[in-house]
Amino acid sequence: MSEKKVSIAVAKRLPKYYRYLGEILDKGITRISSNELSQRMNITASQIRQDLNNFGSFGLQGYGYNVELLYKEIGRILGLDKEHKLVVIGAGNIGHALIKYDSFESRGFKIVGIFDKDADLIGSKIKDLEVQHVDKLKSYLTDNKIDVVVLTVPQTSVKSILDIINESTIEGVWNFTHMELSLREGIKVENVQLMDSLMTLSYKVNEDEIIKRYNGTTKLKEQYYKPVAKD
Amino acid sequence: MSEKKVSIAVAKRLPKYYRYLGEILDKGITRISSNELSQRMNITASQIRQDLNNFGSFGLQGYGYNVELLYKEIGRILGLDKEHKLVVIGAGNIGHALIKYDSFESRGFKIVGIFDKDADLIGSKIKDLEVQHVDKLKSYLTDNKIDVVVLTVPQTSVKSILDIINESTIEGVWNFTHMELSLREGIKVENVQLMDSLMTLSYKVNEDEIIKRYNGTTKLKEQYYKPVAKD
Repeated sequence: MSEKKVSIAVAKRLPKYYRYLGEILDKGITRISSNELSQRMNITASQIRQDLNNFGSFGLQGYGYNVELLYKEIGRILGLDKEHKLVVIGAGNIGHALIKYDSFESRGFKIVGIFDKDADLIGSKIKDLEVQHVDKLKSYLTDNKIDVVVLTVPQTSVKSILDIINESTIEGVWNFTHMELSLREGIKVENVQLMDSLMTLSYKVNEDEIIKRYNGTTKLKEQYYKPVAKD
Repeated sequence: MSEKKVSIAVAKRLPKYYRYLGEILDKGITRISSNELSQRMNITASQIRQDLNNFGSFGLQGYGYNVELLYKEIGRILGLDKEHKLVVIGAGNIGHALIKYDSFESRGFKIVGIFDKDADLIGSKIKDLEVQHVDKLKSYLTDNKIDVVVLTVPQTSVKSILDIINESTIEGVWNFTHMELSLREGIKVENVQLMDSLMTLSYKVNEDEIIKRYNGTTKLKEQYYKPVAKD
């Protein structure tokens, strides 16, 4: 077998498996077939088998999956058996909310540092952590073994932070800015683009009306370019 | 042409087009080919043409796209030409951060109400808005024309809120809980599951090591079920 990576879609479904298996386990269910799991998760049974086969053969024909073992195994696949050290860069509203969100630490994601460049914030505390000036970020990342940077800075500050990140040993960036980041090879990124997400919801809400409108105007091209002077 | 809907993937790319075209427009660029757009956005030119063709023919062979018109058209497709009224349910950390996030309002997404059930929060103000008791939610949704609910409540409160939402005329739910929501037909949902997103990042960081480990153990099945008593 070659060392091929799994698709982005699989990587995004893995936490969902983990979450559902955790809930099933909490209910005292010890084994489950891919069909039952399929019904609960609204993913086809063949998709489930295919997803999990990327990592090994976890099911037994006629038996199904051992819930606890599969749960633990997916936890390991997700790296939840290790502790991850995170720093938050940008102590604004989103940064604040993430620092106060307890669930991350209970899964092994420990926020150990907060950085900002706003003089009014430096030295203030958020949940026992003192906000440090971003000038100290470079040496902090070198001195401490930080795995993941949580980026919640305004667009204008992104460039200078990226230079620091790209020279560090950081392995992942959790990106809350609405920019596509230029990261050196080896640094993984996961985007949470809230404005995009809200616009996607708005699209879904408007979809029926929009599709109807465009289907009625297949000759749009000519009208569309009428007001534009061709050069 | 039948009235088929576009895929989820297209719906998620539309905001990205909107964002990039806005930036290109700000730079004073008035027209762009799908090839140039492709390079900037890291999406293939044929994908771009295919995505946009869902809504009409916006490009002209040998001319490309008129940046301003396409930007406005995608804005309309995303429903940004209308004002949307939102309420936030759950005035915790994430709820707070979203209410204070100014970019939503500048795109036409106006938060007009905040609800919680915590007695200590009721009556307090977040950015000019008074937190109301969730008991008033049902009549509020009826009396005001609310389009979207932003759901940031703990898991235990979800069920009762969903009953209210499903009986209302709400069109969309922006879901920050880590539950899959059971919504009546016609209500659209967009999930922002932060814990899932962080676990996906963790997976990406661990991927090389994990794939290597599993590729070396194709006989995992037998080992895996050894400790399990078969019944």
